[in-house]
Amino acid sequence: MSEIRRDPMTKEWVILSRERSRRPHDFKRREVVPAVPPRQETCPFCPGNEGKTPEETFAFRDGPAQAAPSRWRVRVIPNKFPALAPRGTTRRKEEGIFFLSMDGVGFHEIVVETPSHNRPIPLMDEEEVFEIIMAYRERYMALRWRPGVSYIIIFKNHGPSAGTSLDHPHSQLVATPVVPLHIRSKYEVATSYYDETGRCIYCDLIQEELSAGKRVVIDAERFVAFHPYASRVPFETWIVPKAQQASFGKISADDARHLARVFKELLAKFYYALDNPDYNYVIHTAPIDDEDKSYYLWHVQILPRLTMMAGFELGSGIYINTAMPEETASFMRSFKLPTT
Amino acid sequence: MSEIRRDPMTKEWVILSRERSRRPHDFKRREVVPAVPPRQETCPFCPGNEGKTPEETFAFRDGPAQAAPSRWRVRVIPNKFPALAPRGTTRRKEEGIFFLSMDGVGFHEIVVETPSHNRPIPLMDEEEVFEIIMAYRERYMALRWRPGVSYIIIFKNHGPSAGTSLDHPHSQLVATPVVPLHIRSKYEVATSYYDETGRCIYCDLIQEELSAGKRVVIDAERFVAFHPYASRVPFETWIVPKAQQASFGKISADDARHLARVFKELLAKFYYALDNPDYNYVIHTAPIDDEDKSYYLWHVQILPRLTMMAGFELGSGIYINTAMPEETASFMRSFKLPTT
Repeated sequence: MSEIRRDPMTKEWVILSRERSRRPHDFKRREVVPAVPPRQETCPFCPGNEGKTPEETFAFRDGPAQAAPSRWRVRVIPNKFPALAPRGTTRRKEEGIFFLSMDGVGFHEIVVETPSHNRPIPLMDEEEVFEIIMAYRERYMALRWRPGVSYIIIFKNHGPSAGTSLDHPHSQLVATPVVPLHIRSKYEVATSYYDETGRCIYCDLIQEELSAGKRVVIDAERFVAFHPYASRVPFETWIVPKAQQASFGKISADDARHLARVFKELLAKFYYALDNPDYNYVIHTAPIDDEDKSYYLWHVQILPRLTMMAGFELGSGIYINTAMPEETASFMRSFKLPTT
Repeated sequence: MSEIRRDPMTKEWVILSRERSRRPHDFKRREVVPAVPPRQETCPFCPGNEGKTPEETFAFRDGPAQAAPSRWRVRVIPNKFPALAPRGTTRRKEEGIFFLSMDGVGFHEIVVETPSHNRPIPLMDEEEVFEIIMAYRERYMALRWRPGVSYIIIFKNHGPSAGTSLDHPHSQLVATPVVPLHIRSKYEVATSYYDETGRCIYCDLIQEELSAGKRVVIDAERFVAFHPYASRVPFETWIVPKAQQASFGKISADDARHLARVFKELLAKFYYALDNPDYNYVIHTAPIDDEDKSYYLWHVQILPRLTMMAGFELGSGIYINTAMPEETASFMRSFKLPTT
């Protein structure tokens, strides 16, 4: 029999379908993953092609940019085809009683995570992952002050079914002039919980998850990674800090090192256990005006794209998940990474 | 410059990205669509293979089922791998303070739309489309009375990127024991509008769309088809009845004929103008307890899968649409179907 679960954070329903269920290892990809070269002449993100991109907004590099333009380790550039750009105003325009619009004002940047065309996070060392996280924080802090910016979303599309066709490891940052309704709803649930209990709902949730244990993949010193109770897709994974902090922008360098370790280990488990699956990850953080609130806890959501979102999900918002999070978490928890 | 629009019905934001925008005809699919045979021996939905499916719950047929089991025109069967099934109860189970679940009780049926393996709606005549709609209504009315059923969602997945790999034309019906939160939200917006104005928000919206005209594709006697102001994906299309009616289950046979004409014409425009794109459609209808309310208007949403939902959409709920609905609507409005 299937089970219907309610997401405690969004109040959305999820169907966990046992009839259609697959064992965790059945999700390992079957097709051959094409080999990717370490450098590709035509790739705008590869070193030597800096001239093909808009001017960089930030980089970690060895030596000055002018003398050694290609000696960067992480490089952030404006997206050449931005969804939002720093032009226009946030003034609302009304057309009749129904239609409300505004200029697409904001920022859209690309974080090129490594100079190597074929070095995804699972193959990096922790220092490299740490620098990616620090680049996220750097750009978050730089853009949060810009006029009109209400929310900053940091995310990654890995692989064609996750929405990218560029192999070169990269992630994205979009600063929006509106707070997504989705985030507003999560925030409202958290605020209402805080009003009732005086505590942060995410902090309490991870205590529950840690004491249940069955959905936990990694219990590290400062972060916990688990497959949520109402997982929307097989192997959905959250990484949550153990200490309350509403905004990702406030992460300390020390915490970023701890996060890098957990992040790399998790993505390496995906890489080796499921053979480099396509996935998205997203950092959920507080709106900029709510960065200091005690209600919320930023966290990372990793959503592997092992199954397809179809008409039922699009029409109802209810996901049908064909794997039980307790089973996928157990599989991932016990999966041993190859020793390198 | 991009434009940000707010969906008047859900209050969600959509980014219409001009920088990334493509002309309507650029969405025509490039790859070759494989030819599909009229009958496939291994297809469980083809006539002669009725034994491979669970027992039918409804059919339009020529002659009695026993004597001529394969002489059906439309056939409804329980899904062999149902997401929900009529077992268990809707009693909520709580685990700690966060975790709420219930049995996956409900119904999941397949509507086999035609005996022909290769006869999608665009190639059918109106009578055949009419019978599909009548089969939807029939099963809606049969299942709405069953204990525990709170909502019925009727939808179709067409093509691999829309979530199906079965070529045989079919759609699905899922009866859920909960009202999707997404529908609750839409319903709340509509109710609040009704309280303020005494009118149905969807009825007023179509008046606005008809007087603006620029997003309308078909203005028929009883239905209007248009590309919504805050379209989430290129060529998103809604079909809305001109007269208020909260529940699809209440559609008259006469209206179903009118709907069949518009539906077929729209899907034929997709088929010929964009070369048989993958798409989902979903009938949005009132919750069963609200079928007679004046607040709501059922409608069909067609969502072509011409672009990919990526990390930004998954993380924020904000879609980035690379086409302007005014342009895609104009393109579809003026597109002439081949004369048959």
